[in-house]
This record gives sequence, C-alpha cells and structure tokens, in this order.
Amino acid sequence: MLVNGKPYRTIWLNQQDAGSVEIIDQRFLPHEFVVEQLRSLDDAIIAIRDMHVRGAPLIGATAAWGMYLAIKQGEASELNSLQKVGELLKKARPTAVNLAWAVDRVISKMSCCDGDTIDIVKLEAETICEEDVEICRQIGEHGLTLIESIASNKRSGPVNVLTHCNAGWLATLDWGTATSPVYQAQQKGIDVHVWVDETRPRNQGASLTAWELGQQGIDHTVIVDNAGGHLMQTGEVDLVIVGTDRTVRNGDVANKIGTYLKALAAFDNDVPFFVALPSPTIDWDLYDGGEIPIEQRAAEEVIYIEGNFNQERTRVRLTPEHSPAANPAFDVTPARLVTGLITERGICGASEAELLSLFPERLGRNG
Amino acid sequence: MLVNGKPYRTIWLNQQDAGSVEIIDQRFLPHEFVVEQLRSLDDAIIAIRDMHVRGAPLIGATAAWGMYLAIKQGEASELNSLQKVGELLKKARPTAVNLAWAVDRVISKMSCCDGDTIDIVKLEAETICEEDVEICRQIGEHGLTLIESIASNKRSGPVNVLTHCNAGWLATLDWGTATSPVYQAQQKGIDVHVWVDETRPRNQGASLTAWELGQQGIDHTVIVDNAGGHLMQTGEVDLVIVGTDRTVRNGDVANKIGTYLKALAAFDNDVPFFVALPSPTIDWDLYDGGEIPIEQRAAEEVIYIEGNFNQERTRVRLTPEHSPAANPAFDVTPARLVTGLITERGICGASEAELLSLFPERLGRNG
Repeated sequence: MLVNGKPYRTIWLNQQDAGSVEIIDQRFLPHEFVVEQLRSLDDAIIAIRDMHVRGAPLIGATAAWGMYLAIKQGEASELNSLQKVGELLKKARPTAVNLAWAVDRVISKMSCCDGDTIDIVKLEAETICEEDVEICRQIGEHGLTLIESIASNKRSGPVNVLTHCNAGWLATLDWGTATSPVYQAQQKGIDVHVWVDETRPRNQGASLTAWELGQQGIDHTVIVDNAGGHLMQTGEVDLVIVGTDRTVRNGDVANKIGTYLKALAAFDNDVPFFVALPSPTIDWDLYDGGEIPIEQRAAEEVIYIEGNFNQERTRVRLTPEHSPAANPAFDVTPARLVTGLITERGICGASEAELLSLFPERLGRNG
Repeated sequence: MLVNGKPYRTIWLNQQDAGSVEIIDQRFLPHEFVVEQLRSLDDAIIAIRDMHVRGAPLIGATAAWGMYLAIKQGEASELNSLQKVGELLKKARPTAVNLAWAVDRVISKMSCCDGDTIDIVKLEAETICEEDVEICRQIGEHGLTLIESIASNKRSGPVNVLTHCNAGWLATLDWGTATSPVYQAQQKGIDVHVWVDETRPRNQGASLTAWELGQQGIDHTVIVDNAGGHLMQTGEVDLVIVGTDRTVRNGDVANKIGTYLKALAAFDNDVPFFVALPSPTIDWDLYDGGEIPIEQRAAEEVIYIEGNFNQERTRVRLTPEHSPAANPAFDVTPARLVTGLITERGICGASEAELLSLFPERLGRNG
C-alpha cells in the first residue's frame, strides 16, 4: 500500500543489493517513517524480537528472509546449520505460530529440493510473501461484497466501518486482513470511512491503523475505545470488521482485548460484526473459545504510555505511584455475537458446520 | 476521606484565616497533592473554569464559597451586587447545573433572611456542603447492602467492584457516589477490591479514582477500558457501580463515554450493574435517554495524553499528524441494562414507576 504516495510492502529484498532485506521499522510509527536494512541473521532476530516488525504473517515472512540472510552472509550453508539458524529465529518470539511455521517450511524445502541453497531459500521466502499477499487480497475481495451491499442500500454518506487494533497491511505483507475490504472498496470508488479504535494499552489503532489509512488516503477518525458503543447507538457505524489472533472450531474468536465489548454493542444495535481471518489463524484443535489461553502482559503497558513530545518518543506515567495494574491482552468473542467470518475462501457463519463447509478437508479432525 | 493518612474534604473554609477557602487542586493529581488557597471571587472562578475542581457537587460548593469570598473581600455587599457576582460564577462552566443551582440558592437565602450578609452566605455555603456529604453518605449506606450481600454469598476472596471514570469523593465533598458503598464496606471490615477503568480520553479513573482509593487504603487495580468485559467473562467482577451525569424518568442513564459498553458486558455475564446518584442528578423533565444531548469535546483530548515524565506533567501526541479524532464525552445506558439505581433515599429499579416510588413528590409532573 502507499507511503508518501509510493507503493510499499512491509518487507522486501533490496533490489540494488541482494545481500540485504528491507523492512519498515514500525517502532517509529506514526511519527516517523523509517526503513531499516537487515543485513544478517542477527538483524532479522532483533527486528522480530524487538518488534520492529509485528503481526503473525509479517513475523513469518521476516523469519524466512532471516534464513536467506544467514545463508547469503555465509552464516549457514547446509541443512544442519540452517536448522540451528531456524532454532535461533524461533526463539525470537516463542509464541508466534507463524514464525515456527515459516522456519519449518523453509527447512523442509531445503531438504526436499535439489539446486542452489540460496536460490531455494530465496524462492521460498518470496513464495511465503506472495501467498500472504494473495490470501489478504482474497479476504478483501470477499469482504468488499459486504461494503458494496451496504453502500447500495445507503441513501447518502460513506459506509462507516469500525475496526479495533491493527489488522492492517502493516501486520501482513500487503492489504491487511480487516483493512483489505476497505482498501478494495476505495479502489472501486466506494465512499468509505473508518472509525479507528485507539486500542489501549498499546494503541495499535491510533498509531498504526490510523497511519496506514491516512497514507492510503482513506477517510478515517480516531476514537477512544470507549466511544464505539455510542457511535453504534446513534447509527454512525454500518459495519464492524476486526482481525483475530485465533479462531476455534465453534467460531469463537480471540482478538485484542476490547473486541468482545464492540461485538456486544454491534449485536445490541444490529450492526453486522465480521472477523477477517486467513485460514492459518483457525485453530482446528480447539473446539471452544474458553480453551484459549489469554496472555497476561506487563502492567507497565497500562501504567505508562508512549507518544511524541518535542519530536522525541517519550513515555509518560499515567497512574499513581502505588496503584497496581492488570493487563489481559486478548479477549474471546463468543460465536453468537459474530455475524460472519471473512476467509480467503469466502464468508461463512461463525460455527463449526459453516467453517467446515469452506474447509471440508478439516472434516472429522477433532470432530 | 484520607490523604497521606489525614482526613480531607475537597473544599473547606481555612480555619486559621476566614478570608480564604482551600481546595485540592485536582489538576496535579495523581502525581502531586496540591492544596490551593482561594482568596477572591476571581480565584474561585478560575478554579471552576480551569478545572482545579470538577464534579457537579463540588463545582456547586465552590461557587457558593466564591460568593462568600466576594462579600468577605468587599467585592459585593448587597443583593444587587451579589447577583452580578452570581452571573460571573455561572459563566465559569455554563453547562454545570449544580453551579447555577448553588448560586441561586445563596441569592435566594440572601433575599429572604435578615442578618449579617456574610453570616448568611457562609452558613448557606456550609449547608450546601453538609447536605452533599449527607447525601453521599446515605448513598453509601444503601449501596453497602449490595456489597454485604455479595460478601456473605462468596466463599472466598474479596468482593470485586468495577467502576468507570471518577464518581469518587474528589467529585463531591466527601465519600463520593459510586465509591461511597466501597468506603463504607471498608469501614465495616469487608474485603473489597476495585477494578478501576482508566477512562480514556481524560483518564479520570487512572488519575483520580486510583489515587483516592490508594490514599484510603482500598485494594484496587487499574485496567484499560477494553479489559472489563473479559474480566466479567472470567468471573472476576462481582458488581459494577458507576456514577451518572444525568438520569431521566424512564431510568436511562447518561454517564462518561464507555459506560454503556460495561453495562452490556455486565448484562451478558449476569453481573449486577448499579448506578449511584444523588437525586438532583435526576432530570424529571426528560422521559427518554435519547433526548439527552451528548457533548462533543475537543479532538485534542484523544490526540494527546498527559502524564508524568521526569517529575513534570507532559503532554504527548498519540496519533499521526493528519488523522482527525472524534470525542463524544458521554453515552446513554438504556434502563434495561441497569440492575438498579442507588439514591440517597434507597435503591430502586431503573424505571419511572420505581423512581416515583422513592420520589412520590414528582408524581404527575411531565407524567
């Protein structure tokens, strides 16, 4: 998508120098746009570990390119050493499933294919990236039908979409998941406006989603997480689209903390509530959302907040000296509140039967 | 209530010098406890206008003491000049109903009573304060029964109360409204713990409620506004108590933005949701919550946030340069989601019939 009017992805091979891979260093957004060169395995590990990149698909892609860099810089030359490299990468963020998935995929390609190692790994990294772009594009295509249908029934004004957190192109390679239908609506000339939940405590909405929508020229408004319910009550939201970290067989959806509250408000006001998800996000091994472990993150993320002061990233304290804070990072939205799931294969209801109708190859597993 | 172990109210006549009134300058909380001396009408106007004091009851009390200071300093000596003083005070925050109410009450006392002007005004200001303390104490006494009943049914652990914004003693003279039952439970030796919503955008929860609970030694935990729904899903909230800016005849409740989302989550999880309100907050002239005008405040409150950095109050920017923000300040919780209203006369359901059972003198008006 566009940054300063020029199309970007979140990670790419340097066209001038195949010994480096470039990423958008997202730590500096929204106040500064910084492109970082990764020149070694270590650079890739640091970028993943210290969240220069984030979002499951992008973390996976960065790991694949990290393996490419390791070979390119002579840090690994054969399968055995590449496996060690893979282990190092996997440790960079141990809970990210896409990370291990991408590493294992590159290694398995290495072990099955003949040819020049560097070419095999480079092609696999490129394939991982292209596949993600295609999945997100397809999600957008299916989600677009929802926006088109609302637009055609609306007498005037834009289609108002509310989103929570960042399920945008910055979390993927391009298009994003929840944002992809919006970007495709823009390409079709549909008048669309996005309500962006700031998404405390880490403010991914205010800092990332607002930034990428603004760069792409999408009309949007930042709101505090408290405001969405009122906007639905007053008819100012036509559609909610959020992403998900994990969706289970019965259609329960784990996503950034606060998603459940928006789902309740959408249900209470007859606003359609959709979840955009690439199918790798579906956890076919869990049946019920209650089984999803909820990460408790550091209290510091609640106690402090970071913003820009005199052109410097500055962290200020919000709470009294001795007040403790709790920080559950995700919540589970029960399937009964979810109007539908937007996958790369189409839209379905939030239930096991409907999920299986799109993914029949999963029939019988854990059923 | 306690500050650094010493009992305080939010406003009081200086015992050493009857020419000044003292307030807690709340702008510096939670990072600094500052007592400010008001010595003139101008001081009182500035304190109200620039939010050294906030909360409807406290604003009213400050206005009454402002009239006292005007007379004491020779700025007004007779009814006519006191009316002019009253007009100046009313303009300090034109939307605060308690402000006009307190001013008019002092003026009407002046015009009906014989005696020394300064004594009449002083007595009326004191009476306004004492009445508020008594109302809040009674709300606490009634609300306490809810906490006692939960405590007696609970096998172990504290009674977990969730609150939104600051309906604490800092918004009143003492006790607060939503916090009063909690403070009284503490006095009875009941184990109670409060989940404090930070309450973006102005963070009254994180900065004021957390501070006053901490000073009083009440166990509490600050959470982001997104977290409350998840805590209710996981059984970690026994009771929600919030304040209100305006409650109408049918029991619909206007309160700080985000209250509606917590009411939805409470309803969805069978958590009792109560609203604590002094009866002057009931608007008997409106029947339905939809009639309540919702204040749209400045976008800057969303775009920037203030906290403590290197011992200095510092405002940092959260959003991208060109992203607009919207800031509706209140929302309306429909009566169907409200378990009950805690008033100074007792607890009742959120309906016109139940409200009238406690306030029969309102029967027939606008009915």
